[in-house]
Amino acid sequence: MTTAEAGTVYLVGSGPGDPGLLTVKARDLLESADVVLHDRLPGPEILDLIPDGNAEDVGKRAHSDKRTSQAEINERLVAYATDGKSVVRLKGGDPFVFGRGGEEAEYLADHGVPFEVVPGVTSPVAAPGVAGIPVTHRDHASSVTFVTGHEDPTKPESSVDWAALAAAGGTIVVLMGVTRLPDYTAALRDSGMDPETPVALVERGTRPNQRVATGTLDTIVAARDEVGIEPPAVTVIGGVAGVREELEAFLR
Amino acid sequence: MTTAEAGTVYLVGSGPGDPGLLTVKARDLLESADVVLHDRLPGPEILDLIPDGNAEDVGKRAHSDKRTSQAEINERLVAYATDGKSVVRLKGGDPFVFGRGGEEAEYLADHGVPFEVVPGVTSPVAAPGVAGIPVTHRDHASSVTFVTGHEDPTKPESSVDWAALAAAGGTIVVLMGVTRLPDYTAALRDSGMDPETPVALVERGTRPNQRVATGTLDTIVAARDEVGIEPPAVTVIGGVAGVREELEAFLR
Repeated sequence: MTTAEAGTVYLVGSGPGDPGLLTVKARDLLESADVVLHDRLPGPEILDLIPDGNAEDVGKRAHSDKRTSQAEINERLVAYATDGKSVVRLKGGDPFVFGRGGEEAEYLADHGVPFEVVPGVTSPVAAPGVAGIPVTHRDHASSVTFVTGHEDPTKPESSVDWAALAAAGGTIVVLMGVTRLPDYTAALRDSGMDPETPVALVERGTRPNQRVATGTLDTIVAARDEVGIEPPAVTVIGGVAGVREELEAFLR
Repeated sequence: MTTAEAGTVYLVGSGPGDPGLLTVKARDLLESADVVLHDRLPGPEILDLIPDGNAEDVGKRAHSDKRTSQAEINERLVAYATDGKSVVRLKGGDPFVFGRGGEEAEYLADHGVPFEVVPGVTSPVAAPGVAGIPVTHRDHASSVTFVTGHEDPTKPESSVDWAALAAAGGTIVVLMGVTRLPDYTAALRDSGMDPETPVALVERGTRPNQRVATGTLDTIVAARDEVGIEPPAVTVIGGVAGVREELEAFLR
């Protein structure tokens, strides 16, 4: 049993969506912390674990024009901890996988605030997994890469080298890559990746309303549109995406 | 509250080592399943959750010459489920990250056994994270690749393309890569990666007896030997490995 300590910030991952995939430690910290700063990703079942009055929504977009800025979140974390409160910063998935957790940790260290990292189940592994797609597999992939898909791959300043990823030959999992699917599938084809390479899109992975679209590098854009896949979703590119077909009938 | 169902196999990840990083669902399944087939990775605190008589060690090496073969594990999973038992197959980390979970899932489907995948917190994210190393970071890496390090990179049949990984420019996390550290750091240097690139080794990440060695592509082998890092450990290669230095004093 873990109890949140005064003056400490916990950077906590809430997992990919299924409330059962919250860790025991995260649950204990949500129940014991004085204040929990969260965004919308964790979902209602997890947010309901926070005692009344302790939750602070910093991703709110419903009743205001904009969400709380990163600078303001950083300042609040420091202010609460300095005030002697135990503080949880709750993030979807894992705090250090495309979650700006690294920047928050640096800010805390710069301001002398002790903190602990509490990893969570990360969606680029879990969403495919629950849908019957193993991100690594001896017959298909000996490496897996996570990358974000919200950059325009045709821009020269794009920091993602799709040609190198295609050459690496492992599974590629793209986060936040629904909209730019046509761009990066084209970039991968142009880099010489086989157009018949299996591709799967998993929307709201691990949740009861999960949806999946499957195809190849050539056909996945049409499959996305036919199923109507919307964010949040992950894209899995590689031979492992074809494993789902064998498993699907027996998945519970 | 999840209860294991008769005739079903659950492929469950136990997380990276810290028993607090077990998921709520995994804990419920360990407590309710008729039989749990596990190896040594999950650790004693997690194995103690299994009711007396329900645990079956398939990774045993202490009192016999060899561990249970993969073929025998597959057969037992099917036999128990066919017999109407609820079965957990418990694996370290996540079942689909270098865990042969994909092969077990295929075997179950081939034999008509229903199964569910219960993802776990994966060590290539969590071990660095708890040690103050965010595997992605806006200033350092817009992608992260997990790869195994137990292959000889000089062999022509090596399935890992280190040159392509070096070109991709993201964080590289090597699992099972303590012994071959000299080989793949040399392969990365030969591929043009900056020899000053930060590298960190995290042994028994997330556990109280965690140990860390840090250096660069050029110095990490000496650092490994000085600290005496032993398996199991993960190797983190990339700018993010240098973030630990900023954070270390404030990590709890």
